[in-house]
Amino acid sequence: MSDGTNVVARLDELKQHGAYEGGIDRPLASPQERAARELFAGWGKAAGFAVTQDAVGNVFIRRAGTNPALKPILTGSHLDTVKTGGAYDGAYGVVGAICALEMLEARGIATAHPIEAVAWVGEEGSRFPLGCLGSSVFCGIKSAEEALALEGDDGPTLREALESGPGGYVTGVPMRSERDVAGYIELHVEQGPILEEAGISLGAVTAIFGQRRLRATVQGVSGHAGTLPMRLRADALCAASELILVLDRAARVEPDAVATVGRIVVEPNGTNVVPGLVVFSLDLRAPDVASLDRIEAAFNAAIAEVQTRRNVRVEVEAFERRGATPMVPALRDGIKRAAAALGKPIMDVPSGAGHDAMSLGTIVPTAMIFVPSIGGCSHVAEERTSSADLELGVEALAKALVEVDRTLVEK
Amino acid sequence: MSDGTNVVARLDELKQHGAYEGGIDRPLASPQERAARELFAGWGKAAGFAVTQDAVGNVFIRRAGTNPALKPILTGSHLDTVKTGGAYDGAYGVVGAICALEMLEARGIATAHPIEAVAWVGEEGSRFPLGCLGSSVFCGIKSAEEALALEGDDGPTLREALESGPGGYVTGVPMRSERDVAGYIELHVEQGPILEEAGISLGAVTAIFGQRRLRATVQGVSGHAGTLPMRLRADALCAASELILVLDRAARVEPDAVATVGRIVVEPNGTNVVPGLVVFSLDLRAPDVASLDRIEAAFNAAIAEVQTRRNVRVEVEAFERRGATPMVPALRDGIKRAAAALGKPIMDVPSGAGHDAMSLGTIVPTAMIFVPSIGGCSHVAEERTSSADLELGVEALAKALVEVDRTLVEK
Repeated sequence: MSDGTNVVARLDELKQHGAYEGGIDRPLASPQERAARELFAGWGKAAGFAVTQDAVGNVFIRRAGTNPALKPILTGSHLDTVKTGGAYDGAYGVVGAICALEMLEARGIATAHPIEAVAWVGEEGSRFPLGCLGSSVFCGIKSAEEALALEGDDGPTLREALESGPGGYVTGVPMRSERDVAGYIELHVEQGPILEEAGISLGAVTAIFGQRRLRATVQGVSGHAGTLPMRLRADALCAASELILVLDRAARVEPDAVATVGRIVVEPNGTNVVPGLVVFSLDLRAPDVASLDRIEAAFNAAIAEVQTRRNVRVEVEAFERRGATPMVPALRDGIKRAAAALGKPIMDVPSGAGHDAMSLGTIVPTAMIFVPSIGGCSHVAEERTSSADLELGVEALAKALVEVDRTLVEK
Repeated sequence: MSDGTNVVARLDELKQHGAYEGGIDRPLASPQERAARELFAGWGKAAGFAVTQDAVGNVFIRRAGTNPALKPILTGSHLDTVKTGGAYDGAYGVVGAICALEMLEARGIATAHPIEAVAWVGEEGSRFPLGCLGSSVFCGIKSAEEALALEGDDGPTLREALESGPGGYVTGVPMRSERDVAGYIELHVEQGPILEEAGISLGAVTAIFGQRRLRATVQGVSGHAGTLPMRLRADALCAASELILVLDRAARVEPDAVATVGRIVVEPNGTNVVPGLVVFSLDLRAPDVASLDRIEAAFNAAIAEVQTRRNVRVEVEAFERRGATPMVPALRDGIKRAAAALGKPIMDVPSGAGHDAMSLGTIVPTAMIFVPSIGGCSHVAEERTSSADLELGVEALAKALVEVDRTLVEK
């Protein structure tokens, strides 16, 4: 049996499922993703732990606790990737979870709560139109029936895709009905440059940012680039440029907030035509809702002024308004004590990206541990974390699980 | 024979060649464009004038002058259109020219110089990659051989396209060798809103704007919209937005100048990705080169600052730098006297759009007359000028030809 120190080798083994020249492509319920879950389940069985799965294919590996009255503490992440994903986003938290369980086992460390390593299905939302799919179903945010009826972008429903392989979602693994848990810790690569820039290998996540996704449509008047005098123009791109810069300034004054205009479409988009219409996306994220409110208010105030001065009409549509998920202080303290016990510095970091911890945060005390992403790269083949940091993260997770086990017993 | 007052009916007849639901599509050397030139030549023959053509298909209709020693004064424009063109851009100046000749004939007004109505081929540059093609060849800016060897965007060369129809470019019309001319007046729709806004039906063009066409490439660094902190970003779209607004401000302080960013391409253009690369077009036009220099200098100065502050790299490529073409005062005065004789107000207007008059301006005294474009619309099916203005323009052209004939004799 593994002693849990082989996280790097296991990530290398796992990435064979879905590797291609553009990175790792392992969409939910694909043969590659099924193979990844089979591999995970196999590690659990080989270690002698109980392995179960639920209605949408989430896989749980349980190491028993000493107090049969206590609900399990969960730790894990997801095995699916975006189309041009890397080998660590999600996978690291799943592999790290089973390694941490084995580490506790190998070292003979008992916990009062059962500890479960979990692989949530479909976090990325890149084949079926729902992010954090498996954890949302587990937490009752979405029903299993709704999730299974979702249609993938290649045709079949999730149910059809899951059932298209060998019998059962994960071969020979019984279904789970019980959903009660005591707490959740997710280990993940940062996907950003903050830890690397600080030269610190462990991060205790403060909060997963709240997010607003909006779309602005600027309606101006198109015209001949040579014959339409400046004073008579209603140039949609100039108006959009002003609004983009207002957003940039508004985000920079809010602590840790980010605002991005990533996509812009201009019509007619000809070199000699004054732009008549511009549509652009807004992605606002911040650790608290008040920051998001202030950024949005600054943007809306600018719209009123720009509309009048530039003679354009601006409409804003909101697609998503998700609140922030603060990590629970008692669990964050446990993570920090774990780092201290390892003699390693740890820093507070926000999470601008979304995670399954957002789902778990709605039902139980939740926290996250980050390790550095080299160059801050994410959702690309070049995504990397050093082997030393990958190994340190698992050590920290194992220790943090013990700390949190104690904290939750005392609570 | 026509008395030259039927410009509206003739424009209606002409627009049948190339009309479709999206406007008028009459590319150079297409069957539609050939038919338009045949129609024009036919009007000339019916009126008893001498009709000739040259090596690239420009068609000339000559009304003789009283002094055989004098070179002809030319007046005309082009018959080709952009893909979604209207019925007046170019066509009005060609039809107006033959109408003006017939008007002089019907009224028994002799001129010392011969007057020629001309249809220049390929002004729009929309099928073959050269604008003002016919007038450029006529004026020796481009050789006929070079022009005939140009490949159209649908395959054949100009020579092949011209020779693909009935024998000769325009059936039964002899070739012309002589190129010497005394002066040029072009009648055209404004393609902008200035005359309509002023409520004045005639414009004496001051100058055709100089034009610079450039392309800016802003290289930033792409990243995750949630995890890349604002202070570490090199957002190419924010940098581009600043530069677009600098250009807008710089153009607004130069008299009559215009600057347009019409086309922008963003990569990767995803809603949740910080833009890593932005390429945008610049179209600068002004009645004098000093204005263009100042606008470009302001843009370049901003680049230096934005590059440092936003940690991006900006490169600018110039595609075209064309000087302004001032209209000759003696001819402009002739046009103004013509308006006065008609009892009609006339105003000075710049031309932001390019015209065949730019070619002629390199070899002979040149001037232009504008009539209003309703709503300033140009290069669209909705392009319109009122019948009254179309008719007034022809009257003004006929009178201006007489005035200019006298002016050039006295010179």
